[in-house]
Formats: sequence, structure tokens, C-alpha cells
Amino acid sequence: MTKRRIALISTGGTIEKTYDELSGVLANQVSVLDVMLASLELRGVEVHRVHLMNKDSLEMSADEHTLIAETAAKLAREYAGVVVVHGTDRLALSGDRVVELVGTPASPIVFTGAMRPYELRATDALQNLTEALLAVQILPPGVYVAMHNHVLQFPGVTKDRTAGTFVKEPS
Amino acid sequence: MTKRRIALISTGGTIEKTYDELSGVLANQVSVLDVMLASLELRGVEVHRVHLMNKDSLEMSADEHTLIAETAAKLAREYAGVVVVHGTDRLALSGDRVVELVGTPASPIVFTGAMRPYELRATDALQNLTEALLAVQILPPGVYVAMHNHVLQFPGVTKDRTAGTFVKEPS
Amino acid sequence: MTKRRIALISTGGTIEKTYDELSGVLANQVSVLDVMLASLELRGVEVHRVHLMNKDSLEMSADEHTLIAETAAKLAREYAGVVVVHGTDRLALSGDRVVELVGTPASPIVFTGAMRPYELRATDALQNLTEALLAVQILPPGVYVAMHNHVLQFPGVTKDRTAGTFVKEPS
Amino acid sequence: MTKRRIALISTGGTIEKTYDELSGVLANQVSVLDVMLASLELRGVEVHRVHLMNKDSLEMSADEHTLIAETAAKLAREYAGVVVVHGTDRLALSGDRVVELVGTPASPIVFTGAMRPYELRATDALQNLTEALLAVQILPPGVYVAMHNHVLQFPGVTKDRTAGTFVKEPS
Repeated sequence: MTKRRIALISTGGTIEKTYDELSGVLANQVSVLDVMLASLELRGVEVHRVHLMNKDSLEMSADEHTLIAETAAKLAREYAGVVVVHGTDRLALSGDRVVELVGTPASPIVFTGAMRPYELRATDALQNLTEALLAVQILPPGVYVAMHNHVLQFPGVTKDRTAGTFVKEPS
Repeated sequence: MTKRRIALISTGGTIEKTYDELSGVLANQVSVLDVMLASLELRGVEVHRVHLMNKDSLEMSADEHTLIAETAAKLAREYAGVVVVHGTDRLALSGDRVVELVGTPASPIVFTGAMRPYELRATDALQNLTEALLAVQILPPGVYVAMHNHVLQFPGVTKDRTAGTFVKEPS
Repeated sequence: MTKRRIALISTGGTIEKTYDELSGVLANQVSVLDVMLASLELRGVEVHRVHLMNKDSLEMSADEHTLIAETAAKLAREYAGVVVVHGTDRLALSGDRVVELVGTPASPIVFTGAMRPYELRATDALQNLTEALLAVQILPPGVYVAMHNHVLQFPGVTKDRTAGTFVKEPS
Repeated sequence: MTKRRIALISTGGTIEKTYDELSGVLANQVSVLDVMLASLELRGVEVHRVHLMNKDSLEMSADEHTLIAETAAKLAREYAGVVVVHGTDRLALSGDRVVELVGTPASPIVFTGAMRPYELRATDALQNLTEALLAVQILPPGVYVAMHNHVLQFPGVTKDRTAGTFVKEPS
């Protein structure tokens, strides 16, 4: 069977944070996405990796959100789908920016992230990446976040900081 | 947000096998599905558990395949979707049986399983369960297997024993 | 067989740090020692838990090092051995303090800690705790650190910050 | 600091069993000891690996127990210590055989094994290997089993099949 060719844009965020023994903190240093991808059985997609940046989304500038949105929209024209790994705090800004720029992209763009880094023993990182890599094959063109066992479509998605997940108000 | 009510039918199979220290073998003794479910963030579905049987699918009789298919079809009328955890060796028999019995069910029925038990350090069990629990929310009514990062629709699905996964011939 | 009764003093440190989703940092909040102990098969010792404090050793005052040393020396008279879980940065200060106060304690006192918190997927925490809980049964009375597959006796032990482990100069 | 040179003899047993997806059983196929060793911080010992055999101890012949005992005794003269990874069912036969052959060996010989394979998510394999690799540095010359947080000296050690661990009757 033919695998779908998709692009996977990494931008950093909690999901990719690693532990620095010397300073004793978790930070965005190197991408752990390759380790995560290697632990999954990927029979549906052929992943083209795009390292765009590696930072906490709280530190992203407006220009960087635009860069992420433009890159995702461009890759959506070249690939059968796009997954964007992003810090959750400002994920909705990048998602909304894609909709502002292109409305409906050429193929589905699925954002994902995590509340707890992959490096932790208990983490939502693998679940969320698994969901995004499946959803990108099934969903019609549009901009989404896939995380915590549900898929929400932009615009209108916000992070519920108390619950630690994304929600969408009924329109 | 309202969660979708789905039914989760457990029938056994490799995914649920546990290790017996005395005999030193992996067997279907108790369901580990509850442990798996507890390790996932489930914001999209509210799971109604149905323990139908707990056996290796190689040991299922024709009547048992029919029982699984009838139960899934019936629950598809009562719930927004049905996930069936099943041994992979004879999973396709149960999937085909649903199509024979009802054609298109009232809501999506998604089969899943695993090549390596959840109890193993390296396992595809959580990935596959994660995928089934997401796919059941997105797919239109039909009978599917979700596993190893792809979704295939019955009929026409078979297990490729060499590759250790499911495939579908182009129709 | 009779288990040896030992005391396990927790003082905090990297080994016990847990992840706070809201702030996104690892900190000493609750003790994870009970979780670690539950994951080990303990047939040799019966553990008496003593929660003394829960802090990064870089933040310990001289009085707190003395409190740890006095508590360990006192418990060494009541139990067949004492294990002290401690931040590695100032672990040697507490170890030296025991030797200053009592010379050779009534039973072995074994310090341990970790360079990477137990909460991480890759961690030395379980290895080090396992070693301390075995060494305390075999060693003669004295003050030691057990970590990273070796046991060193105080005084003369220092942390090698580059190597991220403890060393002892030949006397 | 200088590391102690020790020999690590692998003979198979539950600890090293791996899962075969095609047959669906756990068997002694390849050694997973190297994976276990790589996951530990080994600052005390420099390990010399000796692959003697890879089998369930229930299938060992009397000659094989003698071969294991002779090999361990010989290596105890060349190294500062010897660790033997062994199936638990007949571990005591090999341990007793060393004592029969040489009485007290030239350096400590420490047997270990596991009730649950390393490949399982929950396993005693790493705990037991960690303990053996520490005990071999501290114990005086003799023949021992280190497992489940205690060290027992041969002769007089037996496996308690109900408790799933080793015990020793008071002499």
C-alpha cells in the first residue's frame, strides 16, 4: 500500500523539552521528535521532517506565529497533510493565523503538543502525536488541533488553562 | 464540551495478554484495558465498557465471531461509536461478519488489537488503542480497523502475517 | 526469614522532584519515594519512613545539615541501618557532618540521590535507591554514599560536577 | 578512580527472555543484557561479557551446571568478581555446584536472575542486576545469590516457588 506523504513541522514546546542535568531544568534544547517517531509503527504516513524552530511558545513573536502559519500553508500545497508540533500556550495563535492567511488550506493542517514533556515517565506526548498522525489522514482540508482524544477545528479553539487542554465554544 | 458516548467491547487477544510468573507464559487472564484507558487523557469520549470474552482469536468459533459482530452492530445503534479490541489473527473474520450482517452499521465500528502485549516494555498496544478511540469520533458509519497509523475499511482487509499488520487490496 | 529493620530518611533533592504542569518546572513538592519503594521487591529490609524535609540541597542551611546528621546518627542506634535520600549538590556536607558528630555510627548510614528525577523516563533514581537499600544490609557500620554502581566511604567524598557523580581521592 | 574488572556470565533464563511476535511467546533468543547494562550508570565495575549459553534453566543438563560452575570459578581467579545471570528454577544447582567444586572461590561469585523478563513493563530484572553488580564489589570471596533486595550465601539456598524468591534456612 502507498503511504501518504505528510510534512511534520517542529517548533518546540513542552512536548520536546529535555532535562539538563547540570542546571536541573527542562528546556527546549534538542528535538526528541525523532525518538518519538521511532517508537511508533507508522504504516499510513511517510514523514518529511521540517525543523522550523525549537522554543517555548510563550516566547514566540508575532512574526514567528506568521512564519509558522505561512510554512504550514505552503507545505499543505506540497503534501497530503501537515502536522505541527507546537507549545500549547500559544498554539491557538498559530492556528488562528493559518485561517486568517489562507482560510481553508490545500490539505489538512493538524496542530498538536503536550502538557507534559515526552521525557517524563508519565506524559501525554506520545498519545497526542499518535492522534495527530492519524487525524491528518482522515480529516478533510482545514486547520485543527488533535490532542487528548479529541479533534477541534479552528477558528474558535482556546486553551483551558485550568483543565490543561483545548476547548471550543459552540458557535 | 460534551463527550461522545462510545462502547468499548473487549474480546481478548495479544493486546490484553498478561504474564503469569508461575508458568512463565503470556496468556489472556484479566483485562488490562482499564489500565491502558487510565493512562490516556480521554476528553473526546465517554467509554462504556463491555466485557464480551477474553480469548486468543485463534480459538474463536464461528459462533463467537457472529456474537461479536451482532453485539457490535447492536451497540452501534445505542452509542455514537463502537471500538472492538480483538486478537489480530482472526480480527478480519469478525470485521467481515459485521458487514455481512448489517452492511453499514448505525455508527462507526472500529476494530483494533496489537502485535505485542501491553505488558511489554515495547508495545504497539497503546498506539493502536489511541488511534481507535480517535478514529471512532471522526469516521462516518462503517466497519474499520485502526492500527499502526492507518485506518482500513471492511470488507477487503486482511492480515499480512509477514509484515505483522493489516493491509487492503485496491478494489 | 526475618527482614532487617532500617530507617529511610527523605530530605528531598533531584531524585524526588516532580513536574508541575501549570508552571512547567520540576520541583520538590511531594515525595515520590513511596512510588519508587512500591516498584521494588523488598525481601531484605523492612523500611521505616522518616520525612525530615523536602528541599533542593543547594537551599539547605548549616543547621539543616546538622539536623540531618543528628537524625541519621540517632536512628542508626535504633535500626539495623539508615538510608538517607539527599540532593547530590550538598550531600557530601551532610555525610561529613555525621562523621564529625559521631565518627563511626552504631549501624551503617548510606546516603543516595540522583542526577535525574524519578519522574523522567530515563533516570538513575531507581538504580541508586536499589543500591542503597542493598548496601545498607552488607556494609559494616560507617558513613557512605551508594550511587552509580559504587560505594564510597566518608570522609573524603566529593561530587565531581563534570562527571555528574561522586568520587573519592585515594588517601 | 579505577574500576574493578568483573566478568558477567550470561546463561539465559527468564530475565533474558524476549517476545517473538510470530509465535506469540517469550523465549530465550537473543541476550538483552547489553540493553540492561546500557541503561545503568556503571562507575564501579568494568564488565567483561561471557556468553556461555542462552537457555531456560529447567532445560539445563548436569554437565551444563558443571560447565557454569567451572567457568565461574575459573573467571573468579582472573577477575575481581563474577556475576552469573541464570534462570531461577535451577539457579541453586549451579550455585551449590561451585561450592562443591572449589569451596570458596578466589573472588566473589554472585548469581542473579528474575521472575519477570526485562522485556515486560513491570519487571524485577533491572533491580536484580543492579544488586548483583553492586554486591560483587562489596562481598568477601564466596558464592551468593543477590536478588529482591537481599543477598544469600551458598550452600543452603533454595527457591521458594510460592513466594517467587530465594530463601535460606538458618543453619
